[in-house]
Amino acid sequence: MNNKRKIIIDTDPGIDDAIAIAIALFSEELDVKLISTVVGNVSLDLVTENTLKLLTFFGKNVPVAKGSKEPLFQKFEDATNVHGVSGMDGYDFGEPNRSNLLEEHSVNAMRRTILESETPITIVAIGPLTNIALLLKMYPEVKNNIDEIVFMGGSLTRGNKTVMGEFNIASDPEAAKIVFSSGVNLVMAGLDVGLKALVYPEDSQIIKTFGKTGDMMYSLFQKYRGGSFKTGLKMYDSCAIAYLLCPEMYELTDTFIDVETQSNLTLGCTIVDLKGYLKKAPNAKVCTDISPKIFKEWFMKSIKKCI
Amino acid sequence: MNNKRKIIIDTDPGIDDAIAIAIALFSEELDVKLISTVVGNVSLDLVTENTLKLLTFFGKNVPVAKGSKEPLFQKFEDATNVHGVSGMDGYDFGEPNRSNLLEEHSVNAMRRTILESETPITIVAIGPLTNIALLLKMYPEVKNNIDEIVFMGGSLTRGNKTVMGEFNIASDPEAAKIVFSSGVNLVMAGLDVGLKALVYPEDSQIIKTFGKTGDMMYSLFQKYRGGSFKTGLKMYDSCAIAYLLCPEMYELTDTFIDVETQSNLTLGCTIVDLKGYLKKAPNAKVCTDISPKIFKEWFMKSIKKCI
Amino acid sequence: MNNKRKIIIDTDPGIDDAIAIAIALFSEELDVKLISTVVGNVSLDLVTENTLKLLTFFGKNVPVAKGSKEPLFQKFEDATNVHGVSGMDGYDFGEPNRSNLLEEHSVNAMRRTILESETPITIVAIGPLTNIALLLKMYPEVKNNIDEIVFMGGSLTRGNKTVMGEFNIASDPEAAKIVFSSGVNLVMAGLDVGLKALVYPEDSQIIKTFGKTGDMMYSLFQKYRGGSFKTGLKMYDSCAIAYLLCPEMYELTDTFIDVETQSNLTLGCTIVDLKGYLKKAPNAKVCTDISPKIFKEWFMKSIKKCI
Amino acid sequence: MNNKRKIIIDTDPGIDDAIAIAIALFSEELDVKLISTVVGNVSLDLVTENTLKLLTFFGKNVPVAKGSKEPLFQKFEDATNVHGVSGMDGYDFGEPNRSNLLEEHSVNAMRRTILESETPITIVAIGPLTNIALLLKMYPEVKNNIDEIVFMGGSLTRGNKTVMGEFNIASDPEAAKIVFSSGVNLVMAGLDVGLKALVYPEDSQIIKTFGKTGDMMYSLFQKYRGGSFKTGLKMYDSCAIAYLLCPEMYELTDTFIDVETQSNLTLGCTIVDLKGYLKKAPNAKVCTDISPKIFKEWFMKSIKKCI
Repeated sequence: MNNKRKIIIDTDPGIDDAIAIAIALFSEELDVKLISTVVGNVSLDLVTENTLKLLTFFGKNVPVAKGSKEPLFQKFEDATNVHGVSGMDGYDFGEPNRSNLLEEHSVNAMRRTILESETPITIVAIGPLTNIALLLKMYPEVKNNIDEIVFMGGSLTRGNKTVMGEFNIASDPEAAKIVFSSGVNLVMAGLDVGLKALVYPEDSQIIKTFGKTGDMMYSLFQKYRGGSFKTGLKMYDSCAIAYLLCPEMYELTDTFIDVETQSNLTLGCTIVDLKGYLKKAPNAKVCTDISPKIFKEWFMKSIKKCI
Repeated sequence: MNNKRKIIIDTDPGIDDAIAIAIALFSEELDVKLISTVVGNVSLDLVTENTLKLLTFFGKNVPVAKGSKEPLFQKFEDATNVHGVSGMDGYDFGEPNRSNLLEEHSVNAMRRTILESETPITIVAIGPLTNIALLLKMYPEVKNNIDEIVFMGGSLTRGNKTVMGEFNIASDPEAAKIVFSSGVNLVMAGLDVGLKALVYPEDSQIIKTFGKTGDMMYSLFQKYRGGSFKTGLKMYDSCAIAYLLCPEMYELTDTFIDVETQSNLTLGCTIVDLKGYLKKAPNAKVCTDISPKIFKEWFMKSIKKCI
Repeated sequence: MNNKRKIIIDTDPGIDDAIAIAIALFSEELDVKLISTVVGNVSLDLVTENTLKLLTFFGKNVPVAKGSKEPLFQKFEDATNVHGVSGMDGYDFGEPNRSNLLEEHSVNAMRRTILESETPITIVAIGPLTNIALLLKMYPEVKNNIDEIVFMGGSLTRGNKTVMGEFNIASDPEAAKIVFSSGVNLVMAGLDVGLKALVYPEDSQIIKTFGKTGDMMYSLFQKYRGGSFKTGLKMYDSCAIAYLLCPEMYELTDTFIDVETQSNLTLGCTIVDLKGYLKKAPNAKVCTDISPKIFKEWFMKSIKKCI
Repeated sequence: MNNKRKIIIDTDPGIDDAIAIAIALFSEELDVKLISTVVGNVSLDLVTENTLKLLTFFGKNVPVAKGSKEPLFQKFEDATNVHGVSGMDGYDFGEPNRSNLLEEHSVNAMRRTILESETPITIVAIGPLTNIALLLKMYPEVKNNIDEIVFMGGSLTRGNKTVMGEFNIASDPEAAKIVFSSGVNLVMAGLDVGLKALVYPEDSQIIKTFGKTGDMMYSLFQKYRGGSFKTGLKMYDSCAIAYLLCPEMYELTDTFIDVETQSNLTLGCTIVDLKGYLKKAPNAKVCTDISPKIFKEWFMKSIKKCI
């Protein structure tokens, strides 16, 4: 047994998911026990295929399990405008090795992985929280062996899917409600830090020199958001991994968070009660700000390791 | 293979659940493949124990699986005022045989039972719809082999848990929302018929003469609703079974149904759009009225068979 | 000064409004100080014109004031399907005398009438509650000189404008919310009694013999609801006047009432908390049932006086 | 007749209201036709008294009318923590001259002022929008002679009364809903600019030298927010006046705005749809950013004129 931190990644790749997964897979501090897929950026079949392609590309044998095909209540709307029609456009990965794909539903795979682990597991959720909500409702007994749930999602201010709703949370706000009220330790890395976790053209030129992996990432970056590179590519999902590996880049605060599920106008708006208006006990550690400089250094160093 | 209609009963016994289960177990037209338990009238542990006691009492070997411990979003509030602290007060069943209890979660047991069946299965849901909602979200593939979901719940008018909310639906309105919008064939037997499906003291005297089973039921009736027998005991859950065995007691109409989940004031109110105000396609067959006379004859005859 | 009960009628005629107004005008127990008009069954201009026509027809000099052109938040949707395009189709009233029409807004006229009265005034509201809500918010000082507000509207069960919304309340639910929470004494005569306050073809034949007024009413009845006479014409608005003149026809209960304004699905649903689920102090006297026999006798006798 | 822009100020002084009113009264470009008071920072009686004190202090004869004592739906909660118990603590104004106080309700005074004016009137609303909402619902005919409604309120991001609600809007969100959907030209100057319209201790030292007015304002500043001067005093309400007198300090954009009224969690959150997610036509000009430098210069110059 190693001393690495054991994690489950719940994800919907997605270009920025792919980068975050790569960093996790090659970190000497993390032990990725399972990758669980969820509908989000694109359909469940595509995100699962993308996950397998990544693992094949990197030659990593991590179990993969397919999860939810649709959000709990909302209609699925993809984000192919951001990630391309495959969800990971821009690089030809070829056919993936499918031997890592489990037969069981990812909610069951997460349960098994958590209950079998001798030490608590951390869940890193970088897609909509559908699977995590189902896991916590179906199998509340897992709560005792979850260290924390680090999720990319939400916003202290405005949204990027709707006026007040961030993509991951607004894609399944009811799932977020279940997770936020579950009693499990939560860490939120939302738009507030994601919007400042940027890769610029000059960075991508350096990344391009990082061998085969650099070449792959460089190619994906050219397609991300239709290649709107000038204001920087946002490495949202890497922010969740960064919390585990380099938390000193963040300003963190313990606070109460909630999510709007009662009204269409603000559906999926995260309420981050920094000033204690709601007089509720904190249920989350929130990344309120990030040092772009520390992020960049950490990010480039981490990417370079992905071989 | 028999020609009986294959059913799964999802239930939270509960005195009126117990009667409905008994009728189903002894019907020559039904084949009970699985009993799935759900928190509702009392806690999950108690309703499961009660289910096992019933099966032991009747000497029936039907698989039982434990389901959800709590509603999807709402807090659990029991109904011990109606069913007694055990949920089935009034008769000493002794220790049950536990060999029928499966290890797997009832949502997984339902999935397996449905997918393994050569012919479509009917789900009879006589508790809150928590398990059914989880089943449909976790495993949407089961929809193809579900004949219909017959549920006891909802109301065309007022409620019995809140002003506008019926107990089963208002206990987990979000679960009902998922089920109602699932696309599966639905049959609703709600308060509108349950309030007229009555057992009076004189009926219970007759039932008492039905041997050991009659004695047991008679004893339960004395504790139901604190023994408030005069206006009749409501056999809510038997109404769902009655739809399968004696539908001629009902007035039925195809209509669109929905449930309020957006506002606390009317939370769990079922919207049964008999006049088509909402211009939506029907998604349910609704029992709008019942013949108390036909019900009574069917009920007494059915109870008598429970040996 | 007389001993009659002083009332203000707030109305949107409307055929059943017209009948109710007639009864009030000819009652020896009521002193109609003002008629205030409100958008509802048809547009404000039409309901005002209809009011003036009625007064001209009866030769009564009661001040009339125009009120709100539109609900507080909702879009105006008329009910010409029930009352005809003019709101009072079926009889040729000719051009009305307009000398009774005040220049001031009816909210100001109500304020003045209430504050000038030496004894408390009763408001009989038989349209949407828009004007009354504005009156109570603009001039809270009037509350001290209002005896009670008797309104036709709401339902203990289902609606007639939407699945759960009665026409008057669902036409302006936010106005109802303001009125219900105002602290003024309320009396609710809703669908529960209105649906049993019926005029049948044989009654209309008798009414026809009541001279010129009977002829007029008979003609209006032929157009009401497109003349769907067989199941009875519902004299909704007369139920509010009946509470003042013949309360013995009603079963009455003091209870807490509220109205749904937070969700589209049940918008305008009245919550009548007969069983005290909400643990709120009563704010209204509610007509829960009516004796159709007493109603009919009172109604025919009252109509006969309208000369 | 002069060429000045005619305005009505609807206000709840309040220290920052007082400053804004002073600037308006002494501007050579504005003709203040009426000051309408509204419950907000403190009670209606206090804000009216404060308005009269200000006019007496400055020797200005502007008509004042009292408006709404309470919000449309919400409970009144004052902000004495910000403005002191009188709403204008810190300076002894003495007894005001009350001859400018009209007898009529401010909603009626606004109506009269607007309809009597030969040219369209601008409303500057720097308190909750209760009066303006009542004006627009009672007298929709005024819309034809309103130039625009410039209001201080709302936020593109977070709130200062609740997590997502700005004080003026969240104090009466339903009033804001009525105003936003009225079809009248709107200008929003919210927290986004108010938080950057700052007066620092060194500025207040300069203001102190501006004679009697400077002395008065300096004294108020010492009490504003309990004297928490270090991070700057926010001159929220002056931002609305600044739009009329020095719009070049702002970044402006035409967009659709709405306000949350359906859910308690985000009640009063303004939705400013900069990216067009809602596909609605713009209904407001929004001040999205401010030049603090231009503001400061304009502010100091404007204050200096208040003699």
